[in-house]
Amino acid sequence: MARPSKPKLNTDVIAKAALTLVDKHGEFTLPQLAKALSVSASSLYNHVQGKDEIVELMRGRAMSAIELPQGESESWQQTVCLIATAYWNSYSKHPRLIPLLTSHTVRDRTTLRVYDALAEAFAQAGFGAAQRLQAITIVDSFVLGSALDAAAPQLVWEADDTSSQQFKEALDAGLPMEQRAEVTFTLGLDVILDGLSSIPRS
Amino acid sequence: MARPSKPKLNTDVIAKAALTLVDKHGEFTLPQLAKALSVSASSLYNHVQGKDEIVELMRGRAMSAIELPQGESESWQQTVCLIATAYWNSYSKHPRLIPLLTSHTVRDRTTLRVYDALAEAFAQAGFGAAQRLQAITIVDSFVLGSALDAAAPQLVWEADDTSSQQFKEALDAGLPMEQRAEVTFTLGLDVILDGLSSIPRS
Repeated sequence: MARPSKPKLNTDVIAKAALTLVDKHGEFTLPQLAKALSVSASSLYNHVQGKDEIVELMRGRAMSAIELPQGESESWQQTVCLIATAYWNSYSKHPRLIPLLTSHTVRDRTTLRVYDALAEAFAQAGFGAAQRLQAITIVDSFVLGSALDAAAPQLVWEADDTSSQQFKEALDAGLPMEQRAEVTFTLGLDVILDGLSSIPRS
Repeated sequence: MARPSKPKLNTDVIAKAALTLVDKHGEFTLPQLAKALSVSASSLYNHVQGKDEIVELMRGRAMSAIELPQGESESWQQTVCLIATAYWNSYSKHPRLIPLLTSHTVRDRTTLRVYDALAEAFAQAGFGAAQRLQAITIVDSFVLGSALDAAAPQLVWEADDTSSQQFKEALDAGLPMEQRAEVTFTLGLDVILDGLSSIPRS
C-alpha cells in the first residue's frame, strides 16, 4: 500500500496550519509553521511573502463563513444584526486569533466585503462618512469582545465573602452556560443598534 | 562597589515579569518565566501555586489602576462610564493580555471590587439580578473589544479598488489616529448606556 502523500502546499493549507498554531499557542512563527507542515521555510516563501500575508489568509478564512444579506428588503438594523451575528459566530471559535488580527491592517478582500456591506447599511441609516466609520468600529469592538466572552470558562466570576450583595445576586441568577454568551451578545447588539438609531446624524 | 543585588522574588515581581512576556509573545509558560527572572521553577512555586494564580496576579495588576467613584452623588450612568473608561485605559496598554484573562475565571479581589461596583450601579438603575449580569457583560465585552481597537495599527483598514463608495468615504473621513480609538470608545459607551437606559427592566 502506498504511503498517504503529503498534502500539496498552498495558501489554504498554510492558513489552516497557522490557525491551528494560533488556536493552541496564541501566536505562530514561520519556523514553527514550516515544522508543522513538514516543509522548509523557503517552501513557504514560494506561496506567501511573509507573516503579514499569513495573518490576512487566516482573517479571510475566519470571515469566509459570513454570508452577506442579499436583496434590499432588510432594514439597516437587520443587515447589521445579520452580519454581526455571523461575525461573532465565526470569531468565537478562534478567540486567540482576535488580538493577532486587530494588530494587523485589514487587507483581505473576503473581510473588506463585510465592511463594504456595513458601510452601505450605515449610509442607508443616514450616518455621514466619519460617523459611519465610528458606527462600524463600535459594532466591531462589541463583536470581538463578545466573541472572547463566548470562549470564557463555564465559571466566569467567582465571588468571595466580601463581594457585594448586588453582584452575588447577579451571579446566582445568571443564565445557564449554554445560552449565556449568545443571549447576552444578542441583547447587547440590540442595545447598540437601538442606541445608534437615536443619535443625531452628522 | 557591590554588584546590584537581584530583586527579591515576590508576587509583584512575578506578575510584572509575566506581563512583560505576555505583552511580547501573547503567552507565557512557567519555565520561560523562571528563565526571565533568573530563578528556578521551584523558587516560583514558593510564591505561587501555578499558572492560574499568576494570571490572577496579572489581572490584579491591570485592574489596580482603576479608582472607583466615591460617594453617592453620581448617576448610575456616570458611575459605569467612569469605571469603564478607567478599565479601557488600563487594558488598551496590554491588548495581548486580554484573551488570556477572558479564558480564566475571575478570582482576583482587586478585580472583583470593580464588578461589585458595576453590579451596585446596575441595581441602582433598576436592573434585576439576571439582567444586571447581562448589563455587566455587555459593558465588559465592549471595553475589551475597544481596548483591542486602541492597540490597532495606524491604518486599520486598507480599501481596494472594489471597495464600496460608502466604505471608501468613511475611511477618508476617519479621525486622526491620536483621537480615533478614544473618541469612538466614548461614543460607543454613550450609545450602550443610552440603550441600556431604555430597555424594560426585569
